[in-house]
Amino acid sequence: MPSEKVALEESFNRVSACNIYSNIDLPPFDRAAMDGYAVRAQDTRGASELHPARLRVISRGNRIRAKEAVAIATGEPLPLGSDAVVPVERTRREGDAVLVMEPIAPWENVSRKGEDVRAGEVIVREGKRLGPAEVGLLAACGYVEVEVVKRPSVFVIPTGGELTKPGKPLEPGKIYECNSYSIRASLLSCGAVPHVSNPVEDDVGVLKRALRRGAVHDMSLVLGGSSVGDKDLVASAIAEEGELFFHGVAIRPGSPTAFGFVHGKPVFSLPGFPAGCLVAFDLLVRPALQRMLGWREEPRKITAKLGRKVASVLGRVDVVRVKVEEVNGEQVAFPIRVTGSSVLSSLSKADGYLLIPEDIEKIEEGVQVEVIAYR
Amino acid sequence: MPSEKVALEESFNRVSACNIYSNIDLPPFDRAAMDGYAVRAQDTRGASELHPARLRVISRGNRIRAKEAVAIATGEPLPLGSDAVVPVERTRREGDAVLVMEPIAPWENVSRKGEDVRAGEVIVREGKRLGPAEVGLLAACGYVEVEVVKRPSVFVIPTGGELTKPGKPLEPGKIYECNSYSIRASLLSCGAVPHVSNPVEDDVGVLKRALRRGAVHDMSLVLGGSSVGDKDLVASAIAEEGELFFHGVAIRPGSPTAFGFVHGKPVFSLPGFPAGCLVAFDLLVRPALQRMLGWREEPRKITAKLGRKVASVLGRVDVVRVKVEEVNGEQVAFPIRVTGSSVLSSLSKADGYLLIPEDIEKIEEGVQVEVIAYR
Repeated sequence: MPSEKVALEESFNRVSACNIYSNIDLPPFDRAAMDGYAVRAQDTRGASELHPARLRVISRGNRIRAKEAVAIATGEPLPLGSDAVVPVERTRREGDAVLVMEPIAPWENVSRKGEDVRAGEVIVREGKRLGPAEVGLLAACGYVEVEVVKRPSVFVIPTGGELTKPGKPLEPGKIYECNSYSIRASLLSCGAVPHVSNPVEDDVGVLKRALRRGAVHDMSLVLGGSSVGDKDLVASAIAEEGELFFHGVAIRPGSPTAFGFVHGKPVFSLPGFPAGCLVAFDLLVRPALQRMLGWREEPRKITAKLGRKVASVLGRVDVVRVKVEEVNGEQVAFPIRVTGSSVLSSLSKADGYLLIPEDIEKIEEGVQVEVIAYR
Repeated sequence: MPSEKVALEESFNRVSACNIYSNIDLPPFDRAAMDGYAVRAQDTRGASELHPARLRVISRGNRIRAKEAVAIATGEPLPLGSDAVVPVERTRREGDAVLVMEPIAPWENVSRKGEDVRAGEVIVREGKRLGPAEVGLLAACGYVEVEVVKRPSVFVIPTGGELTKPGKPLEPGKIYECNSYSIRASLLSCGAVPHVSNPVEDDVGVLKRALRRGAVHDMSLVLGGSSVGDKDLVASAIAEEGELFFHGVAIRPGSPTAFGFVHGKPVFSLPGFPAGCLVAFDLLVRPALQRMLGWREEPRKITAKLGRKVASVLGRVDVVRVKVEEVNGEQVAFPIRVTGSSVLSSLSKADGYLLIPEDIEKIEEGVQVEVIAYR
């Protein structure tokens, strides 16, 4: 993806397009880390309750010379000549003098210039998603704009003659079109910009026209029409209009997924069954979008004990949705019972999923597993 | 917070304002879970390779009678009279007959009406943040609009005479105003709507005027001006214009935090030091906003082993930022070394934080800890 400049206020959750360096030191000057008196540390040598060091308090703006001090508040720049701050609670004021009751080491209670960030240092790496701390750090270094990766524009094509738009009455044998809604939300969660077309017919000619319309975007997603019944339609449309890379993935749910390129743009055909559609999105489309964005973060993993034995089928990766709960201070992942890939309500209860590799038949209760968290 | 109706397309990440019930069964009808033939299960009794059941294939739309079958695709409604689907790979076609090679049980390979969701069932609970699965589920039940909690409008008041707006040249002794940028991003991450005012002077009269302006919003946040040096200013302004509930919290960083109500609206005074400001936001403001939103989710916790001993001070809760890394298949939380609460760059490296209670002096390396994950 190309990059673009955005105002820092608009940069939250965007992905940095390059390494960003600080032009300044942070803090930009030596400054007081506590309220008290700026002093020369050497003047407090040997000070004690019985023999306090007596320093003359001079006004701000003057260079501090031997046996002088300046009252200072947290965050204020250290006056020239001073090299430490005596906290106010370790002093006693007597007229225009301050008594220091104990010795202080050089640079004590001082935040040194450049201690947080040095000029020339990278403050935000390429591929970092900008959270509150990064946005604050950029502002602290004086930035008002930031170069971020453009958000991929994604064309979403729901297919299927049995689909009714939500809000309309449901005729017998019809179902509501829901995949474009869940996929729109998933795209937003990846930082992409969804453009949802009206549902199209299960017809190769119609699908090819839709794919051509999608080629002005950065990616197209065809939803439905890829289950066994009409698998050839979307795959054929991709193959005829561009290049089909694969059709069918050894995962469950989500196996009837296809991928190719049409007019240079990636196209995924996702299963029509709602849960399969979302699982295939998470396993295949999300990483593709993150790659396009140059986003270098790993998914958040939760280590948990399996709360109930799960069986799997050899030769395919099973995607098992789990609910993670704390039991006796331990994280336990409970597989959510499902009967078919259509079961959307199960996804809504899940905190994440675990992958059972194709060469494993079952995982016993109590075994430690890694759960990939849904945000 | 009051609620409002939004289009389903706009509902991602909003918080449901009430329990939402389904008006329909999901699936809305018995439907084929595989491609094959809809049959009466009893007609396949005793079928085998040697003695297949021979059924007459009739066309769709007719009621199935004894010894009849209808070709069916995954997702299609089951014809009247049928109660099972024989997968196509367990059949052989012979002219207008289909041979079934093994018996099938009633309702095998059928997704039953209402199996995923029953009409009248709660599909989304009050206080649930709407993710892709919830948005999809609402669409599948025919919803086009959803009642969500209004996003709290939050007035942000940066204070401090030493502040320069990013993008301007930095004069000696000045620093860039960064807290309003990180707090704006934090507010967005909570689902609030930030309104950032220009920085105001450290003056009680000016602060009181700003607090009055903030009272048209749902909450105000005063940034800075609450460290020991000028602590009385913001706290005094809150006390004079409304009611001060507390000033000073036994956490580190973030201790100089104050809270009160002004004209019936909550007001937080957050520390000026950037890291303290963000930590106080996460520990105090974020839960307050979630409470206002009625958002019922727990923060995501990561169980990890502590990678390095940390010392703490009795009598206050230490907020220790950590980076979580996988070491030999185990999650290990490494405390990030910091020298002061001003250190924003440390927050940018952290994956989360752990809280050391006020009665604990240290945690040894290798001890299991709970990390509260950022975002």
